[in-house]
Amino acid sequence: MAPNKALIFAKHPETFPVPGEHLIVKTTDFDLDASPPAGGLILKTNHISYDPYLRGKMKPPNPGSYTPGFEIGKPIYNNAISTVVASDNPRFKKGDVVIGYSNFEEYVKVPKERADKDQMAYSVGLSLLENSLGLDPKIFLGALGMSGLTAYSSLYEIGHPKKGQTIFVSAASGAVGQIVGQLAKREGLKVLGSVGSAEKLEFVTKRLGFDGGFNYKTEKPEDALKRLLKEVGSESIDIYYDNVGGEQLDASISLMTVFGRIVCCGSVSQTSKTQGERNLISNIGLVVGKRLTIRGFLVTDKDFASKYWEEHQTNVQKWIKEGNLTVKSSVTEGIDNGAEGFLGMLKGENFGKAILTIAEL
Amino acid sequence: MAPNKALIFAKHPETFPVPGEHLIVKTTDFDLDASPPAGGLILKTNHISYDPYLRGKMKPPNPGSYTPGFEIGKPIYNNAISTVVASDNPRFKKGDVVIGYSNFEEYVKVPKERADKDQMAYSVGLSLLENSLGLDPKIFLGALGMSGLTAYSSLYEIGHPKKGQTIFVSAASGAVGQIVGQLAKREGLKVLGSVGSAEKLEFVTKRLGFDGGFNYKTEKPEDALKRLLKEVGSESIDIYYDNVGGEQLDASISLMTVFGRIVCCGSVSQTSKTQGERNLISNIGLVVGKRLTIRGFLVTDKDFASKYWEEHQTNVQKWIKEGNLTVKSSVTEGIDNGAEGFLGMLKGENFGKAILTIAEL
Repeated sequence: MAPNKALIFAKHPETFPVPGEHLIVKTTDFDLDASPPAGGLILKTNHISYDPYLRGKMKPPNPGSYTPGFEIGKPIYNNAISTVVASDNPRFKKGDVVIGYSNFEEYVKVPKERADKDQMAYSVGLSLLENSLGLDPKIFLGALGMSGLTAYSSLYEIGHPKKGQTIFVSAASGAVGQIVGQLAKREGLKVLGSVGSAEKLEFVTKRLGFDGGFNYKTEKPEDALKRLLKEVGSESIDIYYDNVGGEQLDASISLMTVFGRIVCCGSVSQTSKTQGERNLISNIGLVVGKRLTIRGFLVTDKDFASKYWEEHQTNVQKWIKEGNLTVKSSVTEGIDNGAEGFLGMLKGENFGKAILTIAEL
Repeated sequence: MAPNKALIFAKHPETFPVPGEHLIVKTTDFDLDASPPAGGLILKTNHISYDPYLRGKMKPPNPGSYTPGFEIGKPIYNNAISTVVASDNPRFKKGDVVIGYSNFEEYVKVPKERADKDQMAYSVGLSLLENSLGLDPKIFLGALGMSGLTAYSSLYEIGHPKKGQTIFVSAASGAVGQIVGQLAKREGLKVLGSVGSAEKLEFVTKRLGFDGGFNYKTEKPEDALKRLLKEVGSESIDIYYDNVGGEQLDASISLMTVFGRIVCCGSVSQTSKTQGERNLISNIGLVVGKRLTIRGFLVTDKDFASKYWEEHQTNVQKWIKEGNLTVKSSVTEGIDNGAEGFLGMLKGENFGKAILTIAEL
């Protein structure tokens, strides 16, 4: 018997989840010598992705919700890199490194139904990690995973980037923002970004090549954006890539170009607030006269993951290998720190794509 | 010499324009025996359209504005039905009834540049009124004019109506709303509408065939919409056709279906408010999870007027002639009442498409 630690969803949080209250580390016994389920697998979880959408899965059940909620008393789960410990499925053998959903848990059993299916476009299946260029496997949870494909697909599908135009990306050093900004630079846009620290600001402007940026904690978004637009010689924002919602969204609406596009990827500034605490939007009336499109999406929607998957993998793997695309991860070590790492990401304390390493590969 | 009364734009209003202060009736002399400008025309204005967008033309000059402002000291203008009094242009002869921009003024001179051009898709030109089915000419300013084409083009281009879905139309008895609702009924949607009086509510439900409606002055939009959705057996709103903005927009966002579309046609509830008075939007964060599209447009944009013009004219003329589409006008008589009629429309006191009749045909 081996001890098996898991991060258990214990209670629905009202605002930010509190480690030890809403998310609890619990240890059970796991028989590593037992056989896997018939046709299934036993996996050891190595790296697992933190993503803001997981906060949505902590809300009480709601018929309008887009993602099924986590079950109280069960481990939370997300896309992960894992190692096959034992296999009763012809697709995998012991020692294989696989990508697909796992629990925030050291060891998991995978039933036949999941082990039989490929993990295409974030279905429940599992795939061998294909890493012919020998990249850091963690990148397959970030720039080459859901957040990278989110960035890639939506920038093209909704943003329609055009050379010489101006894009503003919020949460610019985060998992999605860092990719959006660099893709936009490749397309010849002027790229502005917002971040939450001086260190992140230096990273996006010096390392990622953004044309300008600001720290939303020290400068009012509307003032900062007006200043930056002037600095880069633009009159207005053609694309706002919104990862945060709230005040930065409102400021952007007021500074958009006619026929501008707002890509609504997330609203992390709002999701842990109660209805009364949320920032209100005052400029939405400008949507008519400016003929703006404000559009939300999920990467798993038609026209996103499946449409862009192959192009995204090919290009982004190549650009990373060549050193033409920078990726930055923010790694929390050990399942004991799993809840704190998640909370840190919700508060913007991560610096780069947030990942929990449960066991090194 | 004949007296020539005009409605003059005297001052930029802060909120609602005040007759006698921001809009003033002024009389000048007009020589009806004089020759028209070389290659041009003299027109007598019969019917002229009131549209909410005219309020936008009363704002102080602003580089972000989508429509050039009215000039202080000059008459305001809009699309009109007029009669040719004298012509020096081969396209028109005395007595012709024409459609195209005119002033809120009894007599106007039209220069050659405008008289030479057709009035396609609300350009500055003029066209003979083509009315082979013998409809009331005023309809060409409403259901067959800019507001009808606005409704027709945007319902299809942005709304993508599908049989069995549910649409909510605000300002449902107004120029645009009355057409949107009836088109949606033809397409087999469940149609809900909001209006500002009991009389209008009866009109949209009894005469226009809406499946349900509410008076926004006596019932909170969110409560009313929840009640109506239950009554028609729908869980949520697939299309919100927004003519008003503000509270009704916010309530709709919270009740939209996943992949719902919000057609932003106008925000008449907000345009005469100062920044501090405007209603704020609290539900925009739902755009991501619900994958909503919120899109503004102007009928003159590519993909609207020119794309739908012919189809709109053919179908809507036929449906009106057959009695299968009801149109309702709200006519103000006489240029002396021109400012009051305009103010009434901004306040929702019109009942149907608002028109000023300066002189009967």
